[in-house]
Amino acid sequence: MSVADFAEAKKARSGASAPASDLAATMAEIGRNAREAARILAVAPTETKNDALRAMALTLRDRTDLILAANLKDLAAADRRGITGAFRDRLVLDASRIDAMAKGIEDIVALPDPVGAVIADWTRPNGLRIERVRTPLGVVGVIYESRPNVTADAGALTLKAGNAVILRGGSESALSSAAIHDCMVIGLVAAGLPETAIQIVPTTDRAAVGMMLGGLSGSIDVIVPRGGRGLVERVQTEARIPVFAHLEGINHVYVDRAADLAMATDITLNAKMRRTGVCGAAETLLIDRAVVATHLLPIVQALQAAGCAIRGDEETRDHLGEGVEPATEADWSTEYLDAIMSVRVVDGIDEAIDHIERYGSRHTDTIVTEDPAAAAFFLDRVDSAIVLHNASTQFADGAEFGMGAEIGIATGKLHARGPIGVEQLTTFKYRVHGSGQIRP
Amino acid sequence: MSVADFAEAKKARSGASAPASDLAATMAEIGRNAREAARILAVAPTETKNDALRAMALTLRDRTDLILAANLKDLAAADRRGITGAFRDRLVLDASRIDAMAKGIEDIVALPDPVGAVIADWTRPNGLRIERVRTPLGVVGVIYESRPNVTADAGALTLKAGNAVILRGGSESALSSAAIHDCMVIGLVAAGLPETAIQIVPTTDRAAVGMMLGGLSGSIDVIVPRGGRGLVERVQTEARIPVFAHLEGINHVYVDRAADLAMATDITLNAKMRRTGVCGAAETLLIDRAVVATHLLPIVQALQAAGCAIRGDEETRDHLGEGVEPATEADWSTEYLDAIMSVRVVDGIDEAIDHIERYGSRHTDTIVTEDPAAAAFFLDRVDSAIVLHNASTQFADGAEFGMGAEIGIATGKLHARGPIGVEQLTTFKYRVHGSGQIRP
Repeated sequence: MSVADFAEAKKARSGASAPASDLAATMAEIGRNAREAARILAVAPTETKNDALRAMALTLRDRTDLILAANLKDLAAADRRGITGAFRDRLVLDASRIDAMAKGIEDIVALPDPVGAVIADWTRPNGLRIERVRTPLGVVGVIYESRPNVTADAGALTLKAGNAVILRGGSESALSSAAIHDCMVIGLVAAGLPETAIQIVPTTDRAAVGMMLGGLSGSIDVIVPRGGRGLVERVQTEARIPVFAHLEGINHVYVDRAADLAMATDITLNAKMRRTGVCGAAETLLIDRAVVATHLLPIVQALQAAGCAIRGDEETRDHLGEGVEPATEADWSTEYLDAIMSVRVVDGIDEAIDHIERYGSRHTDTIVTEDPAAAAFFLDRVDSAIVLHNASTQFADGAEFGMGAEIGIATGKLHARGPIGVEQLTTFKYRVHGSGQIRP
Repeated sequence: MSVADFAEAKKARSGASAPASDLAATMAEIGRNAREAARILAVAPTETKNDALRAMALTLRDRTDLILAANLKDLAAADRRGITGAFRDRLVLDASRIDAMAKGIEDIVALPDPVGAVIADWTRPNGLRIERVRTPLGVVGVIYESRPNVTADAGALTLKAGNAVILRGGSESALSSAAIHDCMVIGLVAAGLPETAIQIVPTTDRAAVGMMLGGLSGSIDVIVPRGGRGLVERVQTEARIPVFAHLEGINHVYVDRAADLAMATDITLNAKMRRTGVCGAAETLLIDRAVVATHLLPIVQALQAAGCAIRGDEETRDHLGEGVEPATEADWSTEYLDAIMSVRVVDGIDEAIDHIERYGSRHTDTIVTEDPAAAAFFLDRVDSAIVLHNASTQFADGAEFGMGAEIGIATGKLHARGPIGVEQLTTFKYRVHGSGQIRP
């Protein structure tokens, strides 16, 4: 899709200037606009931001027909290219999906505004009062693929945190995203906020992504990729600025010698099979040798009854027999995102932790045990964003954590770790209140 | 200096293995060692870490003569190359500087251990209890120049936060740093901690820095450069992993229309002249046009009396006359680190904030005013790590903030911002306590 086509698609938005023909100039202007908008958003009152969000939700519902018409054009183009079922499902919108987007924005209205919150406050012997106060990050770049709803979700969440956002969606959903973006801009304008607070890159030229990953000359503070492994890998490899992301979720269920069998079965089944395609799904079951004789077969039978294929290490196969495929070395570091689970017998908790350290992706891991000391040992030593005791890995989710909407889950250790909610899209600064103090 | 020379210099340390001749293999081994040590440090009790720190301080004092002998060799080599006075001063050690290092480590003993602190704790309606708990970052890489004391300061601070550290000092201070490093290792061993918790790169080959900036295959979590602009710029440009740093401190004093003259004079003088070479020193004075007639001359006279050269914009020179050099466009973005101050007349607080946004380095800026509304306006809108009201910019320092020792000041917005103390060298994870919960 060319810049001109895109401008055409966005003609409903009055006052939009024609994009420059030079991509670099267009992107530089987007960066400057975002930085300017960020200065205004940083001090925008909570109610103004919430007014904009409410107007966005209203406009999305009002314009359901327009959005669906744009989506039909995207779908027709995709059908001509012969897309697959899962891909098509991510792209397709209907009235209930648009209503869910609007509802998601209303949920963000209800979240507390993190900006301006005083995180710490202390007074020095010389009388200086120091406040550590939450401030917006500035400008967030969001790079996503075929799901058009990211346009609404990411735009609303970054706005609530006082940030400007530069959105770059996939070419397949460009018309749908543009139609949704129009609604977001209408909401901004209705509340008196700059329409450049939420910008969408008006071209599907892949070079634009490279420019965003370079930070647009310091105009983008952090990049959040939303999409499959290929996208996240490219972003992590090429980005010259910070990235909040996880590449994969190679998550483990460790069934300890003190595990209750019924609980271990329920948790393993849920962690693997509730939804196999989410990043919080478990991929590997580690089972303590001390309970192999009693626990392994019932857990595996429950998985198999639910349609899960098992790939076992030698000891697992010794117990379960020929019906179980052998796991290769590669299985331990594979995120199946499918109804497959690798199973390994370990010599107690130390070997389980060593396995997770070696093969895991530092996303989410759980121990099932009735022994509080074993649980504490595991929770202290497994260096993952989320470590659980007697609970399913599928709780790895911002909403399940009570953080409201999330824009993803980060496995990096810097700044954001775990669910990336509105608070993780802020930073802080120090406000120091004096009465003429000079330093001796 | 070759690897072999360095090994010779470190012969006092028994059991040190001869470095591999292949630099890449040596660095990879250092990375693996650090990662292994980090796993042990992450769960080391506070008292064990403090025992190690106390033993380090003791050993530094015990070995004062050995350290000074190594330092004399570094100095002799430096003198042969004809070093400058300031450079030599950074390199030179004496008994009191070694005592100050030991004292610095004892101060770190007294700091609270951040690791394991529960930052937040809440329970979900389904009974899951979620704790957000502070954990070490993992492995910190510190790249520094001629100051050998960084070996002790950085080693001790990173240890307190439960991290392993890989130190890479300048070639000029290699023997001094090696002698100090020996003391740190003796302290680790005395407390039963792995000696690889604090490693020093055993070569001054510059390629080793490049490898550290690449993260040693995921073995380094963050890089902290300690040194001049050239070093920091190289690190920020080349690093493929996160960096905590500031490139420069282009800090401003804004004298508002409601400023008390005596206070404005004292603060400007202190901010500029207390020490001109520190990153918290002010470089630019912005003065509100409304008080130019009354405030400009006395402030400038105080600066000049203290030996400070003034570079003024046209309006400043209109008021002060020919004696003041003109400021060029480049002056507004120059960190003098010297007794020079640029001065500009602005049309009130908005223009002051615009100037800081355009030319500042987001480090530390202060407003002098008796008007609380103006102070709040400035503190909210200036997007710097530290913003002050009626206080000198020279308070930009971890110790002055009451955070204890610092390893530097960061102007980035991610994770660490402002003074980088022991708490900023940690991250967090989520511990989730369940009783068999599965996700519906």
